[in-house]
Amino acid sequence: MSRFLRVAVAGLGRMGKRHALHFLQSTPRAHLVAAFTPDPAEIAWAKEHLEPFGVRIYTDYTALIAAETKPFTDEDSVGGLQAMVVATATTVHAEETIEAIEAGLHVLCEKPLSTNIEIAAKVVETAQKYPKQKVLCGFSRRFDTSYRDAKAKVESGAIGNPAIFRSQTCDKLDPSGFFVAYAEFSGGIFVDCNIHDIDLALWFFGDETPIKSISAVGVTAVQPDLAKHGDVDNGVGVVEFWGNKIAYFYSSRMMASGQHDMTEIIGTEGKITVNQNPIGTLVDLWEATGIRKEIPQDYYGRFREAFITEANEFTEACLDDKPLKSRLQGALSALVIGSVLQESLRSGKKIYFDEKGQRLPEA
Amino acid sequence: MSRFLRVAVAGLGRMGKRHALHFLQSTPRAHLVAAFTPDPAEIAWAKEHLEPFGVRIYTDYTALIAAETKPFTDEDSVGGLQAMVVATATTVHAEETIEAIEAGLHVLCEKPLSTNIEIAAKVVETAQKYPKQKVLCGFSRRFDTSYRDAKAKVESGAIGNPAIFRSQTCDKLDPSGFFVAYAEFSGGIFVDCNIHDIDLALWFFGDETPIKSISAVGVTAVQPDLAKHGDVDNGVGVVEFWGNKIAYFYSSRMMASGQHDMTEIIGTEGKITVNQNPIGTLVDLWEATGIRKEIPQDYYGRFREAFITEANEFTEACLDDKPLKSRLQGALSALVIGSVLQESLRSGKKIYFDEKGQRLPEA
Amino acid sequence: MSRFLRVAVAGLGRMGKRHALHFLQSTPRAHLVAAFTPDPAEIAWAKEHLEPFGVRIYTDYTALIAAETKPFTDEDSVGGLQAMVVATATTVHAEETIEAIEAGLHVLCEKPLSTNIEIAAKVVETAQKYPKQKVLCGFSRRFDTSYRDAKAKVESGAIGNPAIFRSQTCDKLDPSGFFVAYAEFSGGIFVDCNIHDIDLALWFFGDETPIKSISAVGVTAVQPDLAKHGDVDNGVGVVEFWGNKIAYFYSSRMMASGQHDMTEIIGTEGKITVNQNPIGTLVDLWEATGIRKEIPQDYYGRFREAFITEANEFTEACLDDKPLKSRLQGALSALVIGSVLQESLRSGKKIYFDEKGQRLPEA
Amino acid sequence: MSRFLRVAVAGLGRMGKRHALHFLQSTPRAHLVAAFTPDPAEIAWAKEHLEPFGVRIYTDYTALIAAETKPFTDEDSVGGLQAMVVATATTVHAEETIEAIEAGLHVLCEKPLSTNIEIAAKVVETAQKYPKQKVLCGFSRRFDTSYRDAKAKVESGAIGNPAIFRSQTCDKLDPSGFFVAYAEFSGGIFVDCNIHDIDLALWFFGDETPIKSISAVGVTAVQPDLAKHGDVDNGVGVVEFWGNKIAYFYSSRMMASGQHDMTEIIGTEGKITVNQNPIGTLVDLWEATGIRKEIPQDYYGRFREAFITEANEFTEACLDDKPLKSRLQGALSALVIGSVLQESLRSGKKIYFDEKGQRLPEA
Repeated sequence: MSRFLRVAVAGLGRMGKRHALHFLQSTPRAHLVAAFTPDPAEIAWAKEHLEPFGVRIYTDYTALIAAETKPFTDEDSVGGLQAMVVATATTVHAEETIEAIEAGLHVLCEKPLSTNIEIAAKVVETAQKYPKQKVLCGFSRRFDTSYRDAKAKVESGAIGNPAIFRSQTCDKLDPSGFFVAYAEFSGGIFVDCNIHDIDLALWFFGDETPIKSISAVGVTAVQPDLAKHGDVDNGVGVVEFWGNKIAYFYSSRMMASGQHDMTEIIGTEGKITVNQNPIGTLVDLWEATGIRKEIPQDYYGRFREAFITEANEFTEACLDDKPLKSRLQGALSALVIGSVLQESLRSGKKIYFDEKGQRLPEA
Repeated sequence: MSRFLRVAVAGLGRMGKRHALHFLQSTPRAHLVAAFTPDPAEIAWAKEHLEPFGVRIYTDYTALIAAETKPFTDEDSVGGLQAMVVATATTVHAEETIEAIEAGLHVLCEKPLSTNIEIAAKVVETAQKYPKQKVLCGFSRRFDTSYRDAKAKVESGAIGNPAIFRSQTCDKLDPSGFFVAYAEFSGGIFVDCNIHDIDLALWFFGDETPIKSISAVGVTAVQPDLAKHGDVDNGVGVVEFWGNKIAYFYSSRMMASGQHDMTEIIGTEGKITVNQNPIGTLVDLWEATGIRKEIPQDYYGRFREAFITEANEFTEACLDDKPLKSRLQGALSALVIGSVLQESLRSGKKIYFDEKGQRLPEA
Repeated sequence: MSRFLRVAVAGLGRMGKRHALHFLQSTPRAHLVAAFTPDPAEIAWAKEHLEPFGVRIYTDYTALIAAETKPFTDEDSVGGLQAMVVATATTVHAEETIEAIEAGLHVLCEKPLSTNIEIAAKVVETAQKYPKQKVLCGFSRRFDTSYRDAKAKVESGAIGNPAIFRSQTCDKLDPSGFFVAYAEFSGGIFVDCNIHDIDLALWFFGDETPIKSISAVGVTAVQPDLAKHGDVDNGVGVVEFWGNKIAYFYSSRMMASGQHDMTEIIGTEGKITVNQNPIGTLVDLWEATGIRKEIPQDYYGRFREAFITEANEFTEACLDDKPLKSRLQGALSALVIGSVLQESLRSGKKIYFDEKGQRLPEA
Repeated sequence: MSRFLRVAVAGLGRMGKRHALHFLQSTPRAHLVAAFTPDPAEIAWAKEHLEPFGVRIYTDYTALIAAETKPFTDEDSVGGLQAMVVATATTVHAEETIEAIEAGLHVLCEKPLSTNIEIAAKVVETAQKYPKQKVLCGFSRRFDTSYRDAKAKVESGAIGNPAIFRSQTCDKLDPSGFFVAYAEFSGGIFVDCNIHDIDLALWFFGDETPIKSISAVGVTAVQPDLAKHGDVDNGVGVVEFWGNKIAYFYSSRMMASGQHDMTEIIGTEGKITVNQNPIGTLVDLWEATGIRKEIPQDYYGRFREAFITEANEFTEACLDDKPLKSRLQGALSALVIGSVLQESLRSGKKIYFDEKGQRLPEA
């Protein structure tokens, strides 16, 4: 067996390309050996950026698995695949993840597992049947240095007992209409954007904290066509937990300055903010109209390092059989909350849960 | 008639003392001529700080009005009172304001007019019967340089069309139990704290924007005894407006660092934050544990200048018969929203309004 | 005698107007009773802004003193003048200050006492002959809340032993050519701008710290005509003190964003910065090009409160015979250092002092 | 020939280890094939961290070159070395660099080439004889995203014409006495710390800008024993250039909070600051004493990414025969300025240069 983790990437869209390059260039203990995409433009990109480094390109996912999972002979031969990164369209995340698990592979699946809770649950069940394989649904912020610093400080007692959690995911305004087309499959703004914030709330409050109520509102301020998909471009959601805890979320598709994802955790003895003041470079420009600071323009501009850490830690967990730092079940919990927020947005109703977190029938 | 505005202050508690000194020392066009308080400690304070400057002290409100409203003879005599500042306990704001109006005085009443909507409405009605007299319910933030800068920028189109409004009022943790006793009469955290934020939302969205829905949640993280008064020490409230606008609010009684009141107004083309990074002095201390900045410790530390501006502009409006910059009706609207938020907090229910802003019966 | 300090202001130029209004409106224990200016435009301003409040206007300085120093009868009569604020052109500061002192008045003289060291020294000598009168040369920053906070922190040991001091005075670019005309009488950029920073260095290091060496350089980047007056629009000066201390200074006439005066005091155990990040209002504007903060546009925008504190503390010192917080001798010491910096700028030479701070002959 | 750049690292001290790991793990187009160190502790480290990845370890520099420069056969064999990273003690930088150049290798030499100007000049001469080989003296800040952003903005005219340049290098206080021992060979604080700032000044003003004068002062505030080596723990230096430009520098060994290297470039129409407000993580901790931000603790904490960029760009320049972005001559110019600053510090004298930048004899 290789002393490197032999990895393939499925899907070479925006995130797939990044994952491929992270494993190729910035994950010393991994070897990217194969990539799958049926898309001609993505194939062309792969021929230029991956093939010269020995990465084999497949246009059929099943064929890739069949060929690459043959027994390992040496680093330069086909075979010995150990892990799959699933970065295709959300609609096929679940089936491809399940297929890879059943083929004996570790899997790093881009979020979300699915926008459908039942399908996502099936992924979790499948993973549970293969306990020796690592299955990670990547919530990138858990790999971010700043969030980890926040987590360490909270655990050290720096803010007392966390009670209120506020978090936002705000994308730069994209006037192209991209977000309207995207909304058809994204699951809606709470599932697509705030799912990261929800995951963080569960991380800081504890995965097992039962939900008490959920409500959400939203507006379409710049993209009225989002209404066709029951979606909005600005959403505000509130999740009340049993045990005196509240998380509230904001997401937006119309930030003028760039990407601004931030979080505050308020405890009985202090408060932590993460990225309250976003940083592009360390340059300030003092011009006639004042002092100007640029901020990151997109999600990757903010979280690039976190994705690389994720690739490296996933690799290490697979090679050394270490536990992953986030449980797959958590991805499902976040999805459930996101889906109920989206439901509340659409119905206008507040939704209640009993002390075990079981949803109550409508009054 | 005096060319100075002759003013009396009723109540010399925390805010009353400040109003008295602002009119005495920092409002060049006003003369503080009288003060009312029945409280021995406050009387003692007044004898030391006000009496030496010619301010007459009364222990009976009606007696003050009777004596001081006699015809004006000269600056050093009793008589000629033109304006009353009502800064007594909230429970008597309304009746004293009405009494002063009916005695022909201009009135600056501390917020809130009342915690009871009907009583507050009666103040508004009374004021409407005396249109020549100025009646101001002071929302100090409208007099703050920074909020005015924000308002001017929004009106100049700097952020496009405002759609989302977030605002918070966070008090420094006071472990003495003060807030529990205070909660009995305060009307609750949304009426007491967030009423400023609500007033700002109405200022930025327009006073006439009809409400669509209101919901609120809260926790008692440090003062469980607040539950006795149906109150909390951390509250999150969401107000949806017809016309694609949302305001959401946070209030807290447990900020470790000090007072942190901040606002963000998010528009289709930009965003404005007010006091995102609070400033004590302009000193940063670079010590072994990092860079430390101190912040204001209380509301007055943040808004002192705004209170002085309020005193001066109220004085100018009275002397020169200029319109006040904020309508009394707005104070009532803010109170209504605050009360419904508090009601929603207590019932756990979301409350709905029709397109004219009329409350809908529960489903 | 009046229980208010009866004050006159000489000179109603930019600073004179401000001093007049501060004493008129924001100094409760003072009464502005008279003002002197020979300038027709300033007289017109005074007729509008001062005369209605009972301030008598004089076009002759000596006449003002003669009339206003008659015995006090009552608040509304001529006489009883106790203090003079000298805010005329720098060239007459000294003679007017001396005249006022000799007439028995307390004096608050705008900085500098003179640009000529011998003349300034004469003012100090005169003041020493009248020890019951307060004579203050106002270095406004010593009255600033932030600098006082810094001073208190240093004295409490927060940064250990101060060793390095950096301070700058940077004016907003003024393309009108004002600074060229002004340079004829200003004494040069180190005497005009950095004198504040020099005064602060003496405050933080101790007035008695002997100088070891002085050197300065400068450039004319935007106003080449400054060279006519031996001046520059950007200057860098270094003052070495005996006892292991260094102060270095920067001044500029071409800041694009506005006024930026800042200081850092570096000690063996920490560092304090004052106004590293200047604040206009508390508004941040998040627009397409980034986050923009406006800063104060001029010296008064930064230090208005300090000037008012100065007026009030000067008044208190006069009325209650309290010591002033800054010694007149210090103003002279700052002037000496500023003048030697300007000399070094012009000669290009470094200038040395012995361990007692006595200047050494050129090598 | 390998399509990867085959690299060896000489020296595995603090910086050598980092270079080795950067080339091993984070430079996709390079292969680290060998490392040299005579130090037993460093050898032990290499056996653990490098050898398992196929890196051969040598205890003799010449032997390494002899063995590794044999003709290339395949990736896993000895031979085909193309580049050397010199990260040994400063005292042997020059001779090892020359030896490597003469052996036909590209060289990345840690700064400084030497603390002796003549020796450094010899390196430059040698490099000029081998124009096909890349020889880089790494000034890491030129590879930093923020400095590059600043450079791009300056070149785009964002601040008009740069006139004043201020830059500092401040190390965290190290009470162990390390800096005293280090001073024996470091060349002094201006050569060791401010050389980066000097290099930046040349970058922003232009390498060819002739010097007009140099002066420096310094103190020993925490490490009096530095005096033994003619060194200080806090230095202030001023470099005047012909053509109306000034650069001034500060360096310190006693920053309490951590590493703070910052720069400001002041132009006729604006100003740029780089790292005015240093960032550790994006976490702010709001605690009872205020808001606290942690900052990077050492040089590497600030510039890690820049070192990796340097490794990658050096690799690319070697493989693709592209020009390096910084000229070796520049490293020599920076050294000359640093040395003269250090000389001025020691003599207390200001040193002058004619309009061609030639040093003038002492007056």
